[in-house]
Amino acid sequence: MKNVKLTIEYDGTNFYGWQRQKYGRTVQEEIEKALKKIIKKEVKINGSGRTDAGVHALGQVANFEEEFSIPVEKIPVALNSVLPDDIAIKKAVEVSKDFHARYSAVGKKYIYKIYNGPLRSPLLRNYTYFVKDYLNKEDMKKATKFFIGEHDFKGFMASGSQVKDTVRTIYDLSIEEQDCIIRIEVKGNGFLYNMVRIIAGTLVDIGKGKINIEDLSEIIQSCKRERAGHTAPPQGLYLAEVYYEKTIIP
Amino acid sequence: MKNVKLTIEYDGTNFYGWQRQKYGRTVQEEIEKALKKIIKKEVKINGSGRTDAGVHALGQVANFEEEFSIPVEKIPVALNSVLPDDIAIKKAVEVSKDFHARYSAVGKKYIYKIYNGPLRSPLLRNYTYFVKDYLNKEDMKKATKFFIGEHDFKGFMASGSQVKDTVRTIYDLSIEEQDCIIRIEVKGNGFLYNMVRIIAGTLVDIGKGKINIEDLSEIIQSCKRERAGHTAPPQGLYLAEVYYEKTIIP
Repeated sequence: MKNVKLTIEYDGTNFYGWQRQKYGRTVQEEIEKALKKIIKKEVKINGSGRTDAGVHALGQVANFEEEFSIPVEKIPVALNSVLPDDIAIKKAVEVSKDFHARYSAVGKKYIYKIYNGPLRSPLLRNYTYFVKDYLNKEDMKKATKFFIGEHDFKGFMASGSQVKDTVRTIYDLSIEEQDCIIRIEVKGNGFLYNMVRIIAGTLVDIGKGKINIEDLSEIIQSCKRERAGHTAPPQGLYLAEVYYEKTIIP
Repeated sequence: MKNVKLTIEYDGTNFYGWQRQKYGRTVQEEIEKALKKIIKKEVKINGSGRTDAGVHALGQVANFEEEFSIPVEKIPVALNSVLPDDIAIKKAVEVSKDFHARYSAVGKKYIYKIYNGPLRSPLLRNYTYFVKDYLNKEDMKKATKFFIGEHDFKGFMASGSQVKDTVRTIYDLSIEEQDCIIRIEVKGNGFLYNMVRIIAGTLVDIGKGKINIEDLSEIIQSCKRERAGHTAPPQGLYLAEVYYEKTIIP
């Protein structure tokens, strides 16, 4: 029995997200269908976590356990030849028996992209969040430091989510801008449902002056969803990397 | 009667190109349909030139002549509210009676993007030409100078094209690279059918060592399509700007 770790890129535009479901095309289902063609067996893959419809991945990770004869290093080429063109396997490596894409993960990196221009852009529409209003980027940058560290992020979780332990640690949160694109990068030991999108939305609200930086620390501490900013839309979000080595933690 | 110049961005992925045709969705048709909704009249727009299926535009230009009451500066917002999200009007200005998007044009700028990485990228698939093989970028850069200037580009025109005068002037051709993306920028007084894509394909063939730089001058002079490189695919091509001022010419 081999345990194989896959690193996956996908364009989330035409998917109903990662997780297999009854209706609608999903990334998990497409990869499982491709695996069946390659190794002639029904295989269930474990993703590091779900992504919503429209969310992209540069480095989603999944694993599966199965017996098969094809050399592991040939898996990416074999799978990519049968996968649709909005999914690609970037890497496949054999890992130890106890590796699980979700339970072994110790952290994740997400990127969130905002297009802050005067007019909506057809070429960027599926890959950025279009914000027309003026954004005070200096304020947004100053706001990042309030998120860094260990906090109870209950107020930054989609309401209705059932998770009990809502304490997470953000190791790093940075903002860069170039040619009207604002790029937010965030690394943490884990993220609640919609947490990155609510952080991105809150940073936009700070940039617009709707939320004051002075209130941010208290907003986080309040643990109230309604005090945080809006949920930024899915198409600006990219799951960039999943970490499994403790050493990545600064 | 007003004459209006429109500057247009579009994502060419889901279009059968610019020009209105019997079957298949086109950019021209969508803009004409949107204009009809806004000014309640059947309007024909003149594009600066056609673009093929899959080709994008950052600055396509079109004009139309019509009587209407809505202020010209409000046209972009009005049109964008009814246009599909893969087309946007970036600008509308009233121009003199004799302005024609195609016949008044004195030059164009195109961008061609190549993704030179080890594996196909789902996120870049519709916006770049994926080239897996090693490309000698220094050779590609050295090759650019042979294209600059006035040449008979007959060998860099799709075979079957009926244009008689195949002499064109390239003012500038440059190559930049960043993170596996090779960005070719070319400005000229006009371009033959598929000319930019054949120049891009020829540069790729030079990068691969399939065509020698030493032969390039003679290949251009030969005026033979079969001596030039392959036609690079449409999705890497962007019509970036159309020039109407003689002053842009260096």
